[in-house]
Amino acid sequence: MGRTPPHPEVSQFDLQQVLEALVDPVRRSIVTQLDAADEDVKCGGFDMAVSKSTATHHFKVLREAGLIRQYYVGTSRMNALRRAEMDEAFPGLLDALTTRQATGR
Amino acid sequence: MGRTPPHPEVSQFDLQQVLEALVDPVRRSIVTQLDAADEDVKCGGFDMAVSKSTATHHFKVLREAGLIRQYYVGTSRMNALRRAEMDEAFPGLLDALTTRQATGR
Repeated sequence: MGRTPPHPEVSQFDLQQVLEALVDPVRRSIVTQLDAADEDVKCGGFDMAVSKSTATHHFKVLREAGLIRQYYVGTSRMNALRRAEMDEAFPGLLDALTTRQATGR
Repeated sequence: MGRTPPHPEVSQFDLQQVLEALVDPVRRSIVTQLDAADEDVKCGGFDMAVSKSTATHHFKVLREAGLIRQYYVGTSRMNALRRAEMDEAFPGLLDALTTRQATGR
């Protein structure tokens, strides 16, 4: 478990930090793709046109804000949306950003 | 009416622009203060610790994103939250950002 990066608890979630994570369109796309997926997604499994190092940075920002949980399966780093915890901290926020209407704009 | 600044129509609202407006804590505070007020508020009527020119910039960003409507009454520039139009474009977004729980963090 030594490779599992640190994650904030729900009580540590900060609206400002969450909004700064979600204002970036690439990071918001990661969240909407995770929300639409039926399962957790490995870092290489997202549709995004950025370099690997840029992607790693985006995942880190999302993880530190509490939006995603990262863990390893073998050599793959997996990503899970912390939907329930985010809904507990900021009810309706992810709903508003992942609806068809919102993502279509 | 020549002094009334331009405002976007609902069909022109853009989620990215709205989030860029709302990610700033001062601008988010203007929105939550307007949401809590029973009436429109003049530019000088907000609780915020920024210079007048900085405040003017923040109002402009909010107006151009479609979050507020500005109009004159005599020499006072008044601000109205475009709540219904924003709810139409991005259902739940302002609710999520103006709840007591969200604003308390």
